[in-house]
Amino acid sequence: MTTEPLNVGILGYRFMGKAHSNALARLPMFFPNAPDVNRDVIVGRNEEALADAADRFDFDRTATDWQDVVDDVDVFYNLGPNHLHHEPSVAALEAGTPVFCEKPLAPTLNEAEEMAQAADDADVTAGCAFNYRFVPAIQYAKKLVDEGKLGEIHHVRGRYLQDWLVDPDVPWSWRNDTELAGSGALGDLGAHTLDLARFVVGQATGPMERVSGHLQTFVNERPTTDGEEMRSVTVDDAYSAQIEFENGAMGTFEATRFGTGHKNDHTVEIQGSKGGLRFSLERLNELEVLRSDSRGYETVLVTDEDDPYLDHWWPPGHVLGWEHTFVHENYEFLSAIAGDSEFAPSFEDGVRVQQILDAIQRSDDLGQWVTV
Amino acid sequence: MTTEPLNVGILGYRFMGKAHSNALARLPMFFPNAPDVNRDVIVGRNEEALADAADRFDFDRTATDWQDVVDDVDVFYNLGPNHLHHEPSVAALEAGTPVFCEKPLAPTLNEAEEMAQAADDADVTAGCAFNYRFVPAIQYAKKLVDEGKLGEIHHVRGRYLQDWLVDPDVPWSWRNDTELAGSGALGDLGAHTLDLARFVVGQATGPMERVSGHLQTFVNERPTTDGEEMRSVTVDDAYSAQIEFENGAMGTFEATRFGTGHKNDHTVEIQGSKGGLRFSLERLNELEVLRSDSRGYETVLVTDEDDPYLDHWWPPGHVLGWEHTFVHENYEFLSAIAGDSEFAPSFEDGVRVQQILDAIQRSDDLGQWVTV
Amino acid sequence: MTTEPLNVGILGYRFMGKAHSNALARLPMFFPNAPDVNRDVIVGRNEEALADAADRFDFDRTATDWQDVVDDVDVFYNLGPNHLHHEPSVAALEAGTPVFCEKPLAPTLNEAEEMAQAADDADVTAGCAFNYRFVPAIQYAKKLVDEGKLGEIHHVRGRYLQDWLVDPDVPWSWRNDTELAGSGALGDLGAHTLDLARFVVGQATGPMERVSGHLQTFVNERPTTDGEEMRSVTVDDAYSAQIEFENGAMGTFEATRFGTGHKNDHTVEIQGSKGGLRFSLERLNELEVLRSDSRGYETVLVTDEDDPYLDHWWPPGHVLGWEHTFVHENYEFLSAIAGDSEFAPSFEDGVRVQQILDAIQRSDDLGQWVTV
Amino acid sequence: MTTEPLNVGILGYRFMGKAHSNALARLPMFFPNAPDVNRDVIVGRNEEALADAADRFDFDRTATDWQDVVDDVDVFYNLGPNHLHHEPSVAALEAGTPVFCEKPLAPTLNEAEEMAQAADDADVTAGCAFNYRFVPAIQYAKKLVDEGKLGEIHHVRGRYLQDWLVDPDVPWSWRNDTELAGSGALGDLGAHTLDLARFVVGQATGPMERVSGHLQTFVNERPTTDGEEMRSVTVDDAYSAQIEFENGAMGTFEATRFGTGHKNDHTVEIQGSKGGLRFSLERLNELEVLRSDSRGYETVLVTDEDDPYLDHWWPPGHVLGWEHTFVHENYEFLSAIAGDSEFAPSFEDGVRVQQILDAIQRSDDLGQWVTV
Repeated sequence: MTTEPLNVGILGYRFMGKAHSNALARLPMFFPNAPDVNRDVIVGRNEEALADAADRFDFDRTATDWQDVVDDVDVFYNLGPNHLHHEPSVAALEAGTPVFCEKPLAPTLNEAEEMAQAADDADVTAGCAFNYRFVPAIQYAKKLVDEGKLGEIHHVRGRYLQDWLVDPDVPWSWRNDTELAGSGALGDLGAHTLDLARFVVGQATGPMERVSGHLQTFVNERPTTDGEEMRSVTVDDAYSAQIEFENGAMGTFEATRFGTGHKNDHTVEIQGSKGGLRFSLERLNELEVLRSDSRGYETVLVTDEDDPYLDHWWPPGHVLGWEHTFVHENYEFLSAIAGDSEFAPSFEDGVRVQQILDAIQRSDDLGQWVTV
Repeated sequence: MTTEPLNVGILGYRFMGKAHSNALARLPMFFPNAPDVNRDVIVGRNEEALADAADRFDFDRTATDWQDVVDDVDVFYNLGPNHLHHEPSVAALEAGTPVFCEKPLAPTLNEAEEMAQAADDADVTAGCAFNYRFVPAIQYAKKLVDEGKLGEIHHVRGRYLQDWLVDPDVPWSWRNDTELAGSGALGDLGAHTLDLARFVVGQATGPMERVSGHLQTFVNERPTTDGEEMRSVTVDDAYSAQIEFENGAMGTFEATRFGTGHKNDHTVEIQGSKGGLRFSLERLNELEVLRSDSRGYETVLVTDEDDPYLDHWWPPGHVLGWEHTFVHENYEFLSAIAGDSEFAPSFEDGVRVQQILDAIQRSDDLGQWVTV
Repeated sequence: MTTEPLNVGILGYRFMGKAHSNALARLPMFFPNAPDVNRDVIVGRNEEALADAADRFDFDRTATDWQDVVDDVDVFYNLGPNHLHHEPSVAALEAGTPVFCEKPLAPTLNEAEEMAQAADDADVTAGCAFNYRFVPAIQYAKKLVDEGKLGEIHHVRGRYLQDWLVDPDVPWSWRNDTELAGSGALGDLGAHTLDLARFVVGQATGPMERVSGHLQTFVNERPTTDGEEMRSVTVDDAYSAQIEFENGAMGTFEATRFGTGHKNDHTVEIQGSKGGLRFSLERLNELEVLRSDSRGYETVLVTDEDDPYLDHWWPPGHVLGWEHTFVHENYEFLSAIAGDSEFAPSFEDGVRVQQILDAIQRSDDLGQWVTV
Repeated sequence: MTTEPLNVGILGYRFMGKAHSNALARLPMFFPNAPDVNRDVIVGRNEEALADAADRFDFDRTATDWQDVVDDVDVFYNLGPNHLHHEPSVAALEAGTPVFCEKPLAPTLNEAEEMAQAADDADVTAGCAFNYRFVPAIQYAKKLVDEGKLGEIHHVRGRYLQDWLVDPDVPWSWRNDTELAGSGALGDLGAHTLDLARFVVGQATGPMERVSGHLQTFVNERPTTDGEEMRSVTVDDAYSAQIEFENGAMGTFEATRFGTGHKNDHTVEIQGSKGGLRFSLERLNELEVLRSDSRGYETVLVTDEDDPYLDHWWPPGHVLGWEHTFVHENYEFLSAIAGDSEFAPSFEDGVRVQQILDAIQRSDDLGQWVTV
C-alpha cells in the first residue's frame, strides 16, 4: 500500500472530467480504505475554461500540454475525445505512469492494439473506463450468471437508445467525424453494451466469434455551431449487429442517437436454459431476475447491504445514481494501482471490444458475416 | 350482401380449429351485421377426434378427405400444418371457393407464390391468417403511423419469445421438421412479427429491401412422443434478422422457442422523428405511445368506445383477450366475401412475408446480406 | 346431474345481460361438462329493445313482467338495477327457482338480509355475482394465501378507480340516486373490492370487524339525459375506508368515479409476514407475487395449463379478457345447481359485503368507527 | 452575501449525519454559487465514534456537549433522535444561530410549537428537513399542480412502505419508544408523506381539515440488542389515515414498517379534474403524468437540463440518487441563510405536519374524526 497520496492528472475537463473529479472527491467519505489521492493537474487547451474547471474540481494546477504532465503524475486519466486517446496514453505508459482511458479505447483497432501493447510493455495498470461494469445490479447479474443460475446461455440482447441527434439542426461535433471519433453510435454507445455483454455472460458463452453488422446515417450533414456552414457526418447515427458466441448463443445488439424519447436507455437482456435477466440503465438500482423455480421475472432492488458496494452507501431502498458507477470504478482502479493488483476492464478488455467494433464495421462494409 | 348463410368447412380441429370455431360462434351476438355462417363440415384424419371436435365446435358433419369438401362449401378454412397449406388451398381456389389459410402461407416461397397465383386466377377472396393485425391497439398504432404522428420512421424492432422448447426432452413434432414446417421459430413466430411490421409501418417506410439473417438450432434431436427414438430437428429454434427498409429505416427482428420464462411475448417497437410506439401481446389492450409534444411514453388502454372494434364489446377498461383477434379477423374476412370487397391480409400479403422469410434463410445460408 | 337443459330467464338486457348471455353461449364449446342451458326468456319493459336483445342474445322469447317468469324457468338471473334486486329475487326463491343476482345484493342491508333469508328458506342455490372471484389470477392468489405462503396477513389494500363522472355534464342516471342504487361508488365498485378482500384473505385474517368510512360527492346535481333539468346526486362519487380485521390486519379501501384517466382500475394488494401480492384488473392475466425466498415481486402470467380454468382455454400466454370471468362464474353457478352443491359467492356472501357497505355509510354519518 | 465561510456544527453522526456531511461536501463542485461552508464541529456522546466520524466526514473538531456548540457556530444542524430535537434547537435559536432540524420536528405537537415559536422569536432561518421536497420530479409535480394542469384536485394518496420490522426478532431501538420518538411509522414515515402532500397540492386543495386515523402495533415487545431482555414497543408499526381537505378533496395515507418486500417505497398519487400524477421514491427520477389531452399516464424521466436542479448535474438520462435530495436541500437552506431570504420547509411547516400527526393520533384514541 502506498502511503503518499497519488498525484492525479486528468486530460479533459468536460463531462468525463467532471464525473471522475466527483468520484475522486467522494472516495474519502465513502471508501475510507481507498488510496489517498491528490487532485494535482488538469490538462486542456483553453486556459480560461481550464482555470475554471481546476477551481470547481479542486485541482492544484493546470497545464496546456499533456507532454509536461504524463511523467509528472502518479496516475494519468485520459478523458479527452477519442482521437486523443492514443498518443498521450502511450506516452504516459512509456513513462511508467498508470493510465485510465475513456472508452472506446481508440478510433481504430490498430491504435487500440498499440495502446494495449504499450500497457503490456510498461507493465503498469491501464484501465479502460467501461463504468457500467460497476453498477451494483450488473455485478449482481454477473454473479448469477457465473454461478450457473441461468444455465446454458442462449440469448443475449443489448441496446442503447439516445435521441440527441434526431433533430437535423443539432450542430456537428467531433462525435460526428470518423477521424476524430472512429465511429458514431457504434463506438460511443455500442462499446458500452458490448463490454457489458462480455462482462456479464462472457465466462458462460465464451467469446463473440462471428458478427453481422449494419451501420446507418440518417442525417448526412449538420450545421456548424455558428450555423455558418454545413459539415459532413462521416460516422453512423445508429448500428445493429447479430453476433454468434462460441457456445452458440445468439446476440442481438443495437444503438442509436435517433431513439426519439429515449435519453439514456441502455438495456441488457439474457436468457439461459434455467433463467433470465433484464437490466435498464435508467432504472439502474433494479435487476429483473427470472429464477429456475419461479414463474416470472422478479424485480430486485439491488440496494441491500450485502449487494456490491452498497455497504458503503445508504440503507436499503435509498437508491444510487448514475455517478456512483464512477466512484466504484475509481475505487477499484486506484486500489489496484496502490495494491499492485489486476484491474479490469483493462486496455486488453478495451481491445477486445474494439475488435468487435471493427468486425461490425467490416461486416457492414462487406455485406457479410465476419469473424471477430 | 348474400342472404343465405355461408357454409364453412374447416381443415384442422386443434388449436386453430378451436380458435376459428369460437370466432364464428361469437359473431352473431357481437357483430350482428356479419354474414350468417353455417358451421358445416370439419375435415381431418382421425374420425374419433373429428367427431368429438364437430360436437364441441358445433359443426354439422365431418369429412376425412378435403377433396370432397373444397368445392362443396362456400368458404374453406385451411387450419392444418404448414405442409398441408398448398394443395387443399389451391384446389379450393380452383373450385372457386374462398380460402382462409393459416400462416405462414406455405413451407416454401415457391409454394406460397403458387397459392397466390391460384387466388389471383380464381379471383375469389383468399386471406392469410395474420390475426395480430386485428388487435385494436395494433390498428390504433397503424393509424398513428399512417397519420404521420411518428414522423419519418427510423427504427422498427420486433421480437417474439416463447419457451416451450427449452427443455431438450420436449418431444419432436412436425414443427421441428423442415419438410413439414418449412422453418421453425422463423416461420411460426417471425412470420407474425414481419407481417405486423409491414402492416404498421409499411406505408411510411416502404418495403423491406435488404436482409441479414441468422438461424440457430440449440437442440439437434428430440425424442418421439412415445420416447422410443430420437428424431432430428431440421428447423431453427430461433432466428434473428437485420433489415433495411426502402426509406433507410433499420429493422431488428428475432424470435425464439428458447425464451425461458416468456410464454407468448410478442413485442413491436417503432421510433420515428416525432414519436414512438411500443406494443406487447401479453398486454394486448395497451399501447405505449410517445407523442411529439410529450416527454415520455404514455400507456394508452385501447378500450375506448371509439377504438377499433371496441363498440362491439364492453365499456372502457373491460379488457379483451387473445381470442378476440380471431373474431375481428373472421368478421372482416367473411364481410369481404359477402360484400365482394378486398380483404387484407391476403395471400399476396402472405407471399410478401414469405419472401422475407426466404431471404432470411438464404442470408443465413450464404453468410451475407441478400435483397428481398 | 340433470339431463334436461336448464331453462334460463334473465331480467335485464343491457351490460350485464350481454355479459351473462355471452357466458351462457360459450359454455358448450369450452366447458363441455357444464349443464346444458336453454336461453329461454329475457325480461324487460321496453318491448322493442327487448326483442332486439332476444334476437342478439339468442333467447327464445321475451316477457315484460318478471312475475310471469320467476316460477316458469329453472334459473332466474336478476341483472336489473339495484332497486329491482329484492322483489323479483325473493319471488323467484319463494317459487323454488334458483337465483343469480348482480351486485351489490340490494340498496340496503335490510333488503339484502331478507333476500338471504328467502334463499335460506327456499333452500335453493342463490348466487351473488361477484365475478372477479373468477379471475384465474385471483384464485391463484387465494390459494397462495390459504396455503400460508404469505404468512400472517398485516396489510390489505383495495381500490377501484373509474373516471366516467369527472365531467359534471355527464347526465344523471339511476346510479346517482340513493333510492335506486343504495349508494354510489361504494356499492357499485366498493362491493367488488370488499368481496375480493374477503375471498382472498378472509380465511387468514378473519372477518372485518371495525370500520371508519368516508363518502364524498363532488358534483351535487347533474343534467337529465335530455338536458331539460338538473337532478340531485344523492349518492357518493367516491368512498374511502379504514378497516380492522379480526387478526389485527389493517385494511385501506377506496373507490371513485372521479379517477381521471382510470377506466376500470381495480387493484388489490396484500402483505403478510412472509410475502405479498399485487393484482390489477386492467392486467388481469398477471399476478405479482412476493415469495418468502425471493427479493422482489415476481410478475406471474397466470395462463399456464394448470392455472385455474386455463385448461379450458388456450395455450400459455394467450391471454384472457374481462368477459371470461363470467364464463367461469356461470360454469360454477350452473354446475352447483345441476349437482345440488354449494355455490359461492352466495346471497350470504352478498349480505356480508352489504354489512360492510352499511358500516361504512354509518361510520361516515356518525364521524366515528363502527363495528361491522 | 456572506463572504466568510459558514461554520457548521452538526449533532448526530449516523445516517443523517452522513447524508448531510456528504451534501455539504458536494456543494462546491456542483453548486458553485452556494455559500462557502466550513465543516467545523460534530457533536455526540461516544468520543471514539465521534472522532471517527469527524475524520470521515471531514469536520475540524468534535464536541460532546451541544451546549458548547450552539452559539459557537454559524449554523446548527440537529440530526439527533426525535427527543433531542427540542432542547438543542431552541438553545441554538435563542443564541441567534440558524437551525436545520430533522423530521418530525418533535415527538409532540407541543414541543414542535415551542420550537417554531423560538424560531419566530429569534427571527433566524429554521429549516425542517423534509428532503423529499427536493426531488426534481416532486418539484416538477408541484409546478404542474400550481399551474392548474390537473384542474380541481379530488384525490390525494400517499403511502410509505418499509419492511425492516417484519421480523419480530429485530431488536428494540429508540424508534420503538413513544418517549424518544413520539410515534412510530406515523412520525418517521408519515411525516414525509404528509409534508409532500401539503407541498405538492396544498395550494390547490387548501389545508387538511379533518382526519380519521388508525394506528396499529403488530409486535408488542422486542429484544434488546444484546438479547438479554424484552422491551415494550410503545409506538405504532403502521398507520393509516383518511383526510378531508378544505376543497373537499379526499386523502388516503398510510405507512408501515411491516411492508414485506418494500424497502423504501414512498408513493404519492394525485387525481384532479384534468389530469393526474404518480410518483415513487424508488424510481425517483421518474414522474408519471396524465395530461388533459392524453389518454394515459406518461412516464417522464425528469432529468432534462431545464428540470429542477438538473443543470447542475449530468446530461439527460444520467439519473440521480436519493442523496441528491440532500444536496438540493442544503443548497437552498444555506443560500437562504446567506441571502437572508425565506426557507421552506420551515419550522412552521414542521408544526403544520405535526398538527396532522397529532390529529391522527387523537383520532385513533377517540375512534372518531377530529379536526386538525
